[in-house]
Amino acid sequence: MPLPDARSCADALDALRAHTPLVQSLTNVVSANLLTNVLLAAGATNAVVDNPHEAEGFAHVADAVLINLGTPTDEQAEAFTLAARGARQAGAPWVLDPVGVGGLPWRTELAAGLLEHRPTAIRGNPSEILATAALRGASPRGAGRGVDSGSDAAEAVDASVALLAVSEAVSASGPVDHVTGSTVEGDVATVLVHGGSPLLAKVTATGCSLGALAAAYLAVTPDPFTGLVAAHAHVAVAAEAAERVAHGPGTFAAAFLDALAATGPDAIGEVRLRRS
Amino acid sequence: MPLPDARSCADALDALRAHTPLVQSLTNVVSANLLTNVLLAAGATNAVVDNPHEAEGFAHVADAVLINLGTPTDEQAEAFTLAARGARQAGAPWVLDPVGVGGLPWRTELAAGLLEHRPTAIRGNPSEILATAALRGASPRGAGRGVDSGSDAAEAVDASVALLAVSEAVSASGPVDHVTGSTVEGDVATVLVHGGSPLLAKVTATGCSLGALAAAYLAVTPDPFTGLVAAHAHVAVAAEAAERVAHGPGTFAAAFLDALAATGPDAIGEVRLRRS
Amino acid sequence: MPLPDARSCADALDALRAHTPLVQSLTNVVSANLLTNVLLAAGATNAVVDNPHEAEGFAHVADAVLINLGTPTDEQAEAFTLAARGARQAGAPWVLDPVGVGGLPWRTELAAGLLEHRPTAIRGNPSEILATAALRGASPRGAGRGVDSGSDAAEAVDASVALLAVSEAVSASGPVDHVTGSTVEGDVATVLVHGGSPLLAKVTATGCSLGALAAAYLAVTPDPFTGLVAAHAHVAVAAEAAERVAHGPGTFAAAFLDALAATGPDAIGEVRLRRS
Repeated sequence: MPLPDARSCADALDALRAHTPLVQSLTNVVSANLLTNVLLAAGATNAVVDNPHEAEGFAHVADAVLINLGTPTDEQAEAFTLAARGARQAGAPWVLDPVGVGGLPWRTELAAGLLEHRPTAIRGNPSEILATAALRGASPRGAGRGVDSGSDAAEAVDASVALLAVSEAVSASGPVDHVTGSTVEGDVATVLVHGGSPLLAKVTATGCSLGALAAAYLAVTPDPFTGLVAAHAHVAVAAEAAERVAHGPGTFAAAFLDALAATGPDAIGEVRLRRS
Repeated sequence: MPLPDARSCADALDALRAHTPLVQSLTNVVSANLLTNVLLAAGATNAVVDNPHEAEGFAHVADAVLINLGTPTDEQAEAFTLAARGARQAGAPWVLDPVGVGGLPWRTELAAGLLEHRPTAIRGNPSEILATAALRGASPRGAGRGVDSGSDAAEAVDASVALLAVSEAVSASGPVDHVTGSTVEGDVATVLVHGGSPLLAKVTATGCSLGALAAAYLAVTPDPFTGLVAAHAHVAVAAEAAERVAHGPGTFAAAFLDALAATGPDAIGEVRLRRS
Repeated sequence: MPLPDARSCADALDALRAHTPLVQSLTNVVSANLLTNVLLAAGATNAVVDNPHEAEGFAHVADAVLINLGTPTDEQAEAFTLAARGARQAGAPWVLDPVGVGGLPWRTELAAGLLEHRPTAIRGNPSEILATAALRGASPRGAGRGVDSGSDAAEAVDASVALLAVSEAVSASGPVDHVTGSTVEGDVATVLVHGGSPLLAKVTATGCSLGALAAAYLAVTPDPFTGLVAAHAHVAVAAEAAERVAHGPGTFAAAFLDALAATGPDAIGEVRLRRS
């Protein structure tokens, strides 16, 4: 089976816990706290190093880099490029989370520039993946139709495939996450990750946290496709468990962190994956 | 009954849930996460777009804008003006939360400039409302007496009335919130919102979150006075419910988000309002 | 007994609750929310005033200042110096939390400059204390050995002693916290604070929050050594209580805030202190 499967997710979680990768995050002000707690709960660590004086050097130290465009400042914009370049030079994986790309012009330009540094993986909601693909001249089915974050991630699969020209794995989040990459044999494929919870959309920064968790998994998995599927699987399984004990979005957020920590290889191995 | 009452709060909540307004927030680093979660739990959405490259354009897209002066940076200060102008041009309501105005000189200047853009509503603690009114030359009873956030919001009513020269509704938070505005008939009136919880003051950014929620309500209510009362009512009712299950400020914060989501028109309709 | 002991911790907590000191925090984006909630829960208040226009003036108003180097911006870097100078001029205690010093070059320079303003107390993890001491030419045992935050705080005691040349009390966090200072008689001593919880390391910004709490205690205690021990004791006792009711890092974070608020003089008086 050349595709990432439940067994490879379990192996990835074992590797995460064995290596405790250090992620360097350049992220938005809304997500910085939760994202760090998600990484700690899952089994990684995080350092927000997003100033232009230190971002490039630290990318040579970190095991992976996350660049999230959520609330960019001028200093961060400069640091984004430096960190992406540093990660590439160091051979560390880096993940682009193109928050708001398409709808907001300045960060859309920033994303276009960052694609030149070939993100190892890209994670976003469907509209962001469509807009990011459009930056590469792709006009996949669904682009320009105003698809928003609530839409079906299936509509972003063609865009995800187009983005494999500059990246190695691309995912669109939704009620069913769609993760697209190349198998070891070189075939392009999409894995659907079922599970999760509607409450994920009621707690801000859970998507951003998934991007950071993807970076952590990419540092410990044999290929980016497997790492990206494993990150989605970990979130999907933990969110389902958290929903069972939550009374609303506030208690869900706490339970989600508990569940990320409590999820072991057996639990993640029960994730429901399907080939599209 | 020309004044906002419990029934209009219930209608406002129905409208909030029906329209899911998008708030653009320019806010402080302490509040960004909770404020977004409050909006999501209540039934709105949020985007923090606070850079000068995008703030004005996005104010033409958002349903309402919040400008909170809590931890301003130079870039945010520039974006504040652009977003206020954009909101006015687009006809979208915008709310000013004058955090720290009076006590801190730079942001006090910023607030003076922002008043020129006529905030649709202003929400603050009593001392902030007094200091903001003083920027317009008002010397209402209570100004200059060093009233701090723990003081009685009743002392800020005269200042609130004075601020109706530049805004349409003004509220001061306290054990009993005081919301001042004009009725449809043009009479100035103050509505007292009872309820809430002392634990609100033990969780940072609950006040800032109320400002953001006010922006969301202003986007869906027939007039700003009603929207501002409804936002206070939603928080008051949810905080009372949360206090009943909380063991301290940490569990209160989670329960408050649960309760904001669980509060329906019937529950908000039981808010205790009184005309001053 | 000239050393800070459990009784002096209980007295310090009484003083904290009696005076509700106002801390001015200049801190990182990850910690700003939790740190404020920790101060509110413990019995203090917080204002993040970290812009260069207001930082120095506010240091004359605040009861204590925290400077945390976690995610510095250019504006913050300027404000750090202004706030430290303001605190010194006003005679208010200020605490340095040298996050990332040693591993990251720019903030290491910032720390070197800030030491000129003689922080009243310094709190960090062992590697940060070692690196900060190295800035003063100290080469204590353990320096340069790549000691990271998981290491034994005992290895940072010599560095802490060296830092007493520029500060009055220095602590290194670990499974057992080591707090070093001078007794009233002028003897240098180290107090070990037992307790806490492994879950503290699974929730980001608990260390940063301890730095802020130290600032609050320094504002109400007869000497910095006592204040720093009391802050560690309060966290240690509350974390132990929180662990008993937590199901993982998410529920621990909420329970920790509950416990900080619930901890009274009797409870803190049961902290297990030992002289090294």
